[in-house]
Amino acid sequence: MAGARKPGRNFLFVPGPTNVPDRILRAMHIAMEDHRSSDFPKLTLPLFENLKKIFKTREGQVVVYPSSGTGAWEAALTNTCSPGDKLLAARFGQFSSLWIELARRHGLEIIVQEEEWGTGVHPDKIEEALREDKNHEIKGVMVVHNETATGVTSDVAAVRRAMDAADHPALLYVDGVSSIASIDFRFDEWRVDLAITGSQKGLMLPAGLGIVCASQKALAAMNAKCRRAYFEFGDHMKANATGYFPYTPALSLLHGLRESLAMLEEEGLENVFARHRHLADGTRAAVSAWGLKLCAKEPNWHSDTVSAIMVPHGFNGAEVIDRAYRCYNLALGAGLSQMAGKLFRIGHLGDLNELMLLGAISGAEMAMNDIGIEVEPGSGVAAAQARFRGAQMREQQRIAAE
Amino acid sequence: MAGARKPGRNFLFVPGPTNVPDRILRAMHIAMEDHRSSDFPKLTLPLFENLKKIFKTREGQVVVYPSSGTGAWEAALTNTCSPGDKLLAARFGQFSSLWIELARRHGLEIIVQEEEWGTGVHPDKIEEALREDKNHEIKGVMVVHNETATGVTSDVAAVRRAMDAADHPALLYVDGVSSIASIDFRFDEWRVDLAITGSQKGLMLPAGLGIVCASQKALAAMNAKCRRAYFEFGDHMKANATGYFPYTPALSLLHGLRESLAMLEEEGLENVFARHRHLADGTRAAVSAWGLKLCAKEPNWHSDTVSAIMVPHGFNGAEVIDRAYRCYNLALGAGLSQMAGKLFRIGHLGDLNELMLLGAISGAEMAMNDIGIEVEPGSGVAAAQARFRGAQMREQQRIAAE
Amino acid sequence: MAGARKPGRNFLFVPGPTNVPDRILRAMHIAMEDHRSSDFPKLTLPLFENLKKIFKTREGQVVVYPSSGTGAWEAALTNTCSPGDKLLAARFGQFSSLWIELARRHGLEIIVQEEEWGTGVHPDKIEEALREDKNHEIKGVMVVHNETATGVTSDVAAVRRAMDAADHPALLYVDGVSSIASIDFRFDEWRVDLAITGSQKGLMLPAGLGIVCASQKALAAMNAKCRRAYFEFGDHMKANATGYFPYTPALSLLHGLRESLAMLEEEGLENVFARHRHLADGTRAAVSAWGLKLCAKEPNWHSDTVSAIMVPHGFNGAEVIDRAYRCYNLALGAGLSQMAGKLFRIGHLGDLNELMLLGAISGAEMAMNDIGIEVEPGSGVAAAQARFRGAQMREQQRIAAE
Amino acid sequence: MAGARKPGRNFLFVPGPTNVPDRILRAMHIAMEDHRSSDFPKLTLPLFENLKKIFKTREGQVVVYPSSGTGAWEAALTNTCSPGDKLLAARFGQFSSLWIELARRHGLEIIVQEEEWGTGVHPDKIEEALREDKNHEIKGVMVVHNETATGVTSDVAAVRRAMDAADHPALLYVDGVSSIASIDFRFDEWRVDLAITGSQKGLMLPAGLGIVCASQKALAAMNAKCRRAYFEFGDHMKANATGYFPYTPALSLLHGLRESLAMLEEEGLENVFARHRHLADGTRAAVSAWGLKLCAKEPNWHSDTVSAIMVPHGFNGAEVIDRAYRCYNLALGAGLSQMAGKLFRIGHLGDLNELMLLGAISGAEMAMNDIGIEVEPGSGVAAAQARFRGAQMREQQRIAAE
Repeated sequence: MAGARKPGRNFLFVPGPTNVPDRILRAMHIAMEDHRSSDFPKLTLPLFENLKKIFKTREGQVVVYPSSGTGAWEAALTNTCSPGDKLLAARFGQFSSLWIELARRHGLEIIVQEEEWGTGVHPDKIEEALREDKNHEIKGVMVVHNETATGVTSDVAAVRRAMDAADHPALLYVDGVSSIASIDFRFDEWRVDLAITGSQKGLMLPAGLGIVCASQKALAAMNAKCRRAYFEFGDHMKANATGYFPYTPALSLLHGLRESLAMLEEEGLENVFARHRHLADGTRAAVSAWGLKLCAKEPNWHSDTVSAIMVPHGFNGAEVIDRAYRCYNLALGAGLSQMAGKLFRIGHLGDLNELMLLGAISGAEMAMNDIGIEVEPGSGVAAAQARFRGAQMREQQRIAAE
Repeated sequence: MAGARKPGRNFLFVPGPTNVPDRILRAMHIAMEDHRSSDFPKLTLPLFENLKKIFKTREGQVVVYPSSGTGAWEAALTNTCSPGDKLLAARFGQFSSLWIELARRHGLEIIVQEEEWGTGVHPDKIEEALREDKNHEIKGVMVVHNETATGVTSDVAAVRRAMDAADHPALLYVDGVSSIASIDFRFDEWRVDLAITGSQKGLMLPAGLGIVCASQKALAAMNAKCRRAYFEFGDHMKANATGYFPYTPALSLLHGLRESLAMLEEEGLENVFARHRHLADGTRAAVSAWGLKLCAKEPNWHSDTVSAIMVPHGFNGAEVIDRAYRCYNLALGAGLSQMAGKLFRIGHLGDLNELMLLGAISGAEMAMNDIGIEVEPGSGVAAAQARFRGAQMREQQRIAAE
Repeated sequence: MAGARKPGRNFLFVPGPTNVPDRILRAMHIAMEDHRSSDFPKLTLPLFENLKKIFKTREGQVVVYPSSGTGAWEAALTNTCSPGDKLLAARFGQFSSLWIELARRHGLEIIVQEEEWGTGVHPDKIEEALREDKNHEIKGVMVVHNETATGVTSDVAAVRRAMDAADHPALLYVDGVSSIASIDFRFDEWRVDLAITGSQKGLMLPAGLGIVCASQKALAAMNAKCRRAYFEFGDHMKANATGYFPYTPALSLLHGLRESLAMLEEEGLENVFARHRHLADGTRAAVSAWGLKLCAKEPNWHSDTVSAIMVPHGFNGAEVIDRAYRCYNLALGAGLSQMAGKLFRIGHLGDLNELMLLGAISGAEMAMNDIGIEVEPGSGVAAAQARFRGAQMREQQRIAAE
Repeated sequence: MAGARKPGRNFLFVPGPTNVPDRILRAMHIAMEDHRSSDFPKLTLPLFENLKKIFKTREGQVVVYPSSGTGAWEAALTNTCSPGDKLLAARFGQFSSLWIELARRHGLEIIVQEEEWGTGVHPDKIEEALREDKNHEIKGVMVVHNETATGVTSDVAAVRRAMDAADHPALLYVDGVSSIASIDFRFDEWRVDLAITGSQKGLMLPAGLGIVCASQKALAAMNAKCRRAYFEFGDHMKANATGYFPYTPALSLLHGLRESLAMLEEEGLENVFARHRHLADGTRAAVSAWGLKLCAKEPNWHSDTVSAIMVPHGFNGAEVIDRAYRCYNLALGAGLSQMAGKLFRIGHLGDLNELMLLGAISGAEMAMNDIGIEVEPGSGVAAAQARFRGAQMREQQRIAAE
């Protein structure tokens, strides 16, 4: 296996960037064009409309930035908050922490509910905090739908119910970076006010687009005083209305986005969600077969886009990752911050299928074995296969019954 | 010529985005990879080093954002200014106007020197204003090196001399979006403090990267109070030091940037500048042959990356552009703001050669003729050819003499 | 203009390979797949059907080889002739010569009608020869529809009329390599028996596919005795019937072909022919303005896909080509065989538009001037523009009148 | 798993076409160029030289056709044989059968040694036949190095020894289509006279190039009387000498070939062979673990590029393949001719690595289980893992020991 070249494909199982389908790479391989031409809106106007479907919104306003998801975090907050505004946020992982930090840099005051890593947002505590906020000083509730660092999905619908129960007018901010287009997300039904995502996860694109969806209620808060220019909603909304942008857009990615949205529609968004759950089920079956535990404490926290797998005491998750990367061309996600070394992560989102995942599970088995973690070779693969074959059988019975 | 399909290539002669060479499109057509892997710095560390050459700096710090050039404008200002700070800026076109507007949104106080559109920064007036600023309340001077809207290049070296003559400590901010990598730019020699560019002009990439180069003096001003998070220099500098980024980078564009820098090095930066001057000379010869005038008032203002061409009274530049686009598949730049309808622009920057430009000149001739502007058919082409052939001859004599 | 890199695009104006549109390059950028899978016929069966439209046939049988057009020449002859068979052929250029040579290598006896280079097939002479062939020993008539070396198009319909007038049963073999999908071609109407083309001309693909269309009468001659295996029609026809191939097909090119056929259909085949005539008219106008002559003697011989332009006495066409290639990144075609040095060729077929051609005409002007041929700079461009603008005007009037 | 779109990558495990690496796809995504330009030999001359390394020849002459491997079969025979010539060939699979059939179509008389499918060439029988051929009427010996249909590799060196032992002057023809660049092949050392390969196997390219390597002794036989034109060596040798081709070459594939040769050199040809053996070992371990048998009878026949796996009595291999393709997006090879239904094949050649193969093995397990073949889930994966981990360990010990 010597030699400078690494043959074959890299198995990319970090929870983003995800595998970009060849169709999307092709769609992005294009000559530039004049983004002020009379033809340009033929590309953009349908894009803005179709993006809404991904958020499941009719009323929301989408804004697309040349930025990462971090930029979209900033856009959502700075367009609707003023320095000194209070927001309520739960912290239970690296990404919920970073978002809080970003908000503070913009002068916002964040009331933090610390949750155990491996759990997520506790709607009852949200409700309690909001009930206590008699004067409605809390302007917003920040929820990380899927905490990528720990593989924990929180229940946004329950947060909305909590807010309603408290009869509180705060805006609902949701980070859907590693959930939207992979895990069910319902902007209108849950009355989300600001939803944030990026291009490099469920949308199966390279990083480079930050996307925000804003409710009419959110737009009404645009007289907020946080200073902003690049991320100003208003400039985009005005230019987007006729199919243009306030500054040069990331054209290649827009073409990729068009293809991505077409592919999601072809597969069917509900089928996409089902596929993610299916692959996550297989992964979790493998983890059980290995005798290991997820970082996510209970099934209700289990993420369908990323599984964070605790390594046994005495072992270092970073060594699993290093071994997998160097020897098997498999990229796994690392434990971050307080989870550093304690786990490794398998991202199972985006353009994946069963055999790709079984290859990755197999690679994880070898890497664990190599550094001395005693999992039964092939056991995870067999457990995942059992899930996959069962689903195939059920699906076929369903088709036969139709 | 009916039929839905437009055969052949679009002639893209807007002053950005520019034509992306096939080599760069290929370099960007890649599978995603883990941007936290141990291999990743092999891509990024040389990239940061080689970017410096484009700015002609050894001491400067480059920061690369997933953003447009507008984001880089914001980054340069917010990292080094506090709300209420005074900056001095000349305004003489759409882009100098927009930058001033952006600065004001961030709470900066801009002292504006209005200059006639078609001219640029007047260093003597800069010097005068700085001399009068005894208390050094002016924190910075904002210069648009190349005003894309009017085809005007200002003399940054002269601005530096003016600042020195006034013995003023203000920071020198330079928008080099449509000059850097096309027109000579000398960060260290001119002691620029903040230089700004984007990927979609001289770097021959799609839009999506905003790039700032900051001097050590600029970095010393990072305790500034403008709020920022996405564009915070410090996060990037810290992560970049070991080859990483504070958030997911626009991987495809980074690969494209590597190829772009390799191509610029292969051609030789000075040869790239000479080629831009050469093509601009040809364009200006064509304009003279047509009996038309540039928006840029005097030869010292003439830009080597874009020519803004005044249409005769009674004609509308927008009609030339519309005709060229619809009938000849040629994209020209429009007149903006107070120049709307009065001119059309030929962008001659990026990956261009003589025949591409001659095709565009020919298309402009036909479009003008079509709407009734009486320029002699073929006259602009012949005038440009004469310049091009002369240069070829001189070049061959030079080679022969060696 | 020094430096190793040649900036900008190459102007490819040889008469094949032609410019491959980006859409087709993208369509070819694909992962391999199992060419024996149950899905494969979904690609191939529509391809075989749609290819027939290009030939304008309903009854013909198309066969697609991984080969160049030369292979298709061989396939047409060896599947329908036996060694010793007599065929009648006119020779008036490099490609008609090569085809005759190929036929002879396979043991066929070719009765050659020598025609002046610059003219083509003389139907009256064909008729005469066939009338004299009382015993019908002549098995076929070989016609090069468009002789690429001299820019001469022959009248295939007139050849058919001549054959009918002589009441002769010979098969009609037509080389349509540089005509099909560019110049009107009517397989069924003209009762062509074997038509030959390649992928790298009007089909706008890279070289690598040789395509034959055979009439039912031709198929009835498949008991012929020329030895063949790779090019055996029967193997292909049998496998193609269900969507497969007798050996591994050139998959990338098949995907490219699908896109090519879609593009031709979008533009409309008649519009494609009109565009080629339009661009050829512009080229011929330029040649007249230069005071030069075409190799093709009379307008009835003028090819709409390639113009062979005679250089004045005392000049060498190869120098024009060399100069154009080295100095202006323009690829022109050379004079071949007895025309070596006497002419240069502009191929104007495939995915071209007016501005591309005007750039090439402009480059030819400069190259000619450089080596001392005195053509008026810009004169060819102006003459072509006049044609192009006139056509635009007529087209607009037509649209307005509808 | 419903929905029209098949998410994720197809697992292509037919024994050709193989997976084309992204690098090669990128290298093929190019604008066309003039194949008669003065620059063209810069591409081709190094290509011809580097191709020789793949054959391990210094003296051989390579010829590259736009064709499939079938065309290269034809070229090798028709350039060196005359109708009526006798050749000796063993038949033990679909491809050895097809080659014999092709030879007969060209009028050659083939003396066939029938061998059991699952075995290959028996050198002792070759020697015996040649010894009996006192008058040296046998002009050549045809050997299929790797019979793709049964996964059998024959010993070419032993055939050479047999020919030498018989002191017979026959030419040695070797079909290396599914061995060259994957399994050790030594043109000069084994004194092969005609070696044949195609682009779509070990060379990791799309189909479309047929490649022959001819010894000086073979070239001396070019006065042979088989009729040929497209495949005539002489035309290619003459044109290739200066870097050109006798007809338009398949340019995209030539660029791909350049990249392919670079990649093989980077990895190191011996490392490439070792990798193929390594992956084949893993596959064979899986087959053993499943309790199944290979078609190849004994280890000495085992192919390192393809394993043909016998399904138990009562089962149909075609159902495994169908199930794998439809449900798991896995393409396996079918049993052909007398092996139809009795086996399925895993191609493990080209740009593959361990995890890709483990994914495929896992998919084969599921497909077999689905149709009722009782193999232990995960057992094949575990067995292959054991081989792979062992090799990794030995490699690391080797590196540590250096």
